[in-house]
Amino acid sequence: MMEPAIVNNDSKSTIMARMCCWPQDMSKSLIANVVTLLGMTKKLAKDDPRRVIYSLKVGLALTLVSLFYYFQPLYNTFDDSATWAIITVVVVFEYTVGATLVKGLNRAMGTFLAVALAAGTNHLASLFGNIGEAILIGLFVFIFATTSTFIRFFPKIKRRYDYVFLIFILTFSFISVLGFREETHIIEIAHKRMSTVAIGIVVTVLINILIYPIWAGQELHNSIALNMEKIGQCLQGFGAVYMRTDGEAKSKDTSKSYFQGYQSVLHSKSSEETLANFARWEPPHGQFRYRHPWNKYVKLGFLSRQCAYRIDALKAYCNLDIKLTQKFQEEIKEACIKMSLESGNALKELSVCVREMKYPSSLVNAHICSSKAELETLKTLLKSISLYNNTKSNQQSEVLIQTIPMVTVVYLLTDIVDYTEKMAATTYELATIACLGKSKVMNAAEVSPKKSANNFDETNNQPTNQLILITIAEQSDMTANSLYN
Amino acid sequence: MMEPAIVNNDSKSTIMARMCCWPQDMSKSLIANVVTLLGMTKKLAKDDPRRVIYSLKVGLALTLVSLFYYFQPLYNTFDDSATWAIITVVVVFEYTVGATLVKGLNRAMGTFLAVALAAGTNHLASLFGNIGEAILIGLFVFIFATTSTFIRFFPKIKRRYDYVFLIFILTFSFISVLGFREETHIIEIAHKRMSTVAIGIVVTVLINILIYPIWAGQELHNSIALNMEKIGQCLQGFGAVYMRTDGEAKSKDTSKSYFQGYQSVLHSKSSEETLANFARWEPPHGQFRYRHPWNKYVKLGFLSRQCAYRIDALKAYCNLDIKLTQKFQEEIKEACIKMSLESGNALKELSVCVREMKYPSSLVNAHICSSKAELETLKTLLKSISLYNNTKSNQQSEVLIQTIPMVTVVYLLTDIVDYTEKMAATTYELATIACLGKSKVMNAAEVSPKKSANNFDETNNQPTNQLILITIAEQSDMTANSLYN
Repeated sequence: MMEPAIVNNDSKSTIMARMCCWPQDMSKSLIANVVTLLGMTKKLAKDDPRRVIYSLKVGLALTLVSLFYYFQPLYNTFDDSATWAIITVVVVFEYTVGATLVKGLNRAMGTFLAVALAAGTNHLASLFGNIGEAILIGLFVFIFATTSTFIRFFPKIKRRYDYVFLIFILTFSFISVLGFREETHIIEIAHKRMSTVAIGIVVTVLINILIYPIWAGQELHNSIALNMEKIGQCLQGFGAVYMRTDGEAKSKDTSKSYFQGYQSVLHSKSSEETLANFARWEPPHGQFRYRHPWNKYVKLGFLSRQCAYRIDALKAYCNLDIKLTQKFQEEIKEACIKMSLESGNALKELSVCVREMKYPSSLVNAHICSSKAELETLKTLLKSISLYNNTKSNQQSEVLIQTIPMVTVVYLLTDIVDYTEKMAATTYELATIACLGKSKVMNAAEVSPKKSANNFDETNNQPTNQLILITIAEQSDMTANSLYN
Repeated sequence: MMEPAIVNNDSKSTIMARMCCWPQDMSKSLIANVVTLLGMTKKLAKDDPRRVIYSLKVGLALTLVSLFYYFQPLYNTFDDSATWAIITVVVVFEYTVGATLVKGLNRAMGTFLAVALAAGTNHLASLFGNIGEAILIGLFVFIFATTSTFIRFFPKIKRRYDYVFLIFILTFSFISVLGFREETHIIEIAHKRMSTVAIGIVVTVLINILIYPIWAGQELHNSIALNMEKIGQCLQGFGAVYMRTDGEAKSKDTSKSYFQGYQSVLHSKSSEETLANFARWEPPHGQFRYRHPWNKYVKLGFLSRQCAYRIDALKAYCNLDIKLTQKFQEEIKEACIKMSLESGNALKELSVCVREMKYPSSLVNAHICSSKAELETLKTLLKSISLYNNTKSNQQSEVLIQTIPMVTVVYLLTDIVDYTEKMAATTYELATIACLGKSKVMNAAEVSPKKSANNFDETNNQPTNQLILITIAEQSDMTANSLYN
């Protein structure tokens, strides 16, 4: 009976102690939370200072638009509908210039369409007396809202003009109902609405372009180059860390840091396509001219993803502890390491070329060539497997089964080398179109990219672009120097 | 000199003829366009009639909300701010109930936060005279707009509360500026704004739930089952069409129809996660109770995607024309066909179980067992390769190299069988939690799913759940019958 009493006393004193400590604990945890939050904020701002700049730009645009209310004359002209300028700024002010332009254009189109239709239907309805007008306007709202909601399901519309129809429904219902009640004429409402929305769009676009603009094109450019670099790093890591079977180099931390990158590449499709879509609307800026070949970036992104899928499959074979009992297994392993390392080096080099928008250097070609040379070595090795016939038959079959995962790795790496070559060709095309202008592109197309494209089509799995790549490299050393220095 | 004249005459008469035909051509192409559009509309509506219903619901909600303007007394209470109800309906009325609830809640939170803060800051600013008030309000708008724009960059906020902060910025700027100018008190404006937004949300949510609701949970449920079926069909197709080397069965149309499905599974991640997020907010409906295990669907989706990645890799090996010179190659091929077919059958069967939310049937287990049996056959076959020693050494190595792609196929199929087993276990867990309620789940967890989960963790690549699956199947025949009949 004693024990429970002691426990009770203990728990009572604990509760008392907790009650006393509560304010202290509370303030401590509050301080800890604030510190964590400040740390996160600092990290977010430090990782990408443009976030802070963007936030300040939004604040500035909103304050500017609020001026409509501070100045009496402007207020008299627009009265309440000036709040539409505020709404427009908040909704249209996107992170990149391209996105802002597309959204602004969509909002303008939707508003214009709605205002025009609402004015028409209201005029029609006003011919039918007061009750008839109310019924007709209700009917119009129902019909137009239903129709345009349905239109938003069309795949083409959904991809490009979804926002137009959202704004259309909103503005149409809004204006036709307002026009029915207000004493003022519908044309006046329509005019006010359109001018305030236009003011909102103009202020947003001007501030977004004039003050430290963030271009969707530049974002796409950087993201593609970064993804190629990540894939390259993974391959280097695969060569350096994973294929080592001696255990000590396989520390989890090292391998994790190498393999972190490619995961984000797997799901990059939609963001890249969106950025490419926005980039097309942007005016020429920096190194990007009018009609910059954005589709080449989409192609590079596609090829990077294909590599990432292969790396995902490769990862499964990394943790297999293969006992290398034969000399040829040792040799296969070494060749795999070199092949992976070389294609990793090629991709990293290529990512620099994409970043600086220049022709693939001769170094890229050298790396691709040596990874292909390793592939040839591997083929010879595989052919020589049957020469190890001096062991017993049963033991040999064991050795063969152990070798099979390594052969799969070879196949996956072959695919990756293939895609690396295609990326080199696409980078060459990109540099050609971006640097030489239209007239020279035609000449270049006759000489090289077409040839390489044909090669890809004809030889399905292993395009033999070695020769072309050498030509590319030779040209690039010449042209790149004359262009960039 | 004659020829050009003739040409000129010819071209003139052509132009004349074209001018005459122009209205006819125009009307013809117009009619053709309208017919195409009508066809597309009909197809869209027929593919999913809920699209039409959703559009009608939006129309109805907007017409209902417009009633605020038709009835004089309501109009006098809310005047212009009643347009906010219209805007709320248009923006909040999402396709599924879950999405509508989440967006409505976000909008309500954002509005409430903004109104409360705007009232506070306006009261503070009013203490500083007219000019001081204008400057202070401008400053507050700038600070709050900047801060909340930056907050939207926090990953957690971006994922869940992005819309809250958008609405917050909008409403805050709007009300604090309006409150500064208006003769009416800020509390009145705030009250009007909040009630109209609330009316909009209530009307939207009621119409969305009461009239033919489209549940995010049901969508997720169907999409997961469909994806599993697609993967199953691909595997069946791979067995039936691709591994045949006799050419005639490899007709492109047949293979295309088999292989169309899995592509959409590759990119299903974000849509499934979004649906699962929305489904959590939905009230119990149909076969889905409160706290339905939506995370199990996300897991099934993840496993389906893993299978789809493997199928993507398999596709590369389909077009290889392997010359089967040896009996053992013939046997490997046959075993691969059976293995693929059996796991395809298992997945199709499982998809039916998920769709009907019942325990995996004994049929699923039978299919998985026989695909594993094929795997054992394959292992024995591979071990026996070295027995084919009677041919010349060089010829043998050729045969071995030809066999290597088939071995890769075996490895990929092994992965797929592994994932199929995991899917069977997850389907079992899903059925247990969904059908038996909380108390029984605890018991079940002690018996089966925990065991199977451990198995997955410990044996990394080849979980040996055969025994458990047999238990599952036996139980399921019992429980499923007692539950569903």
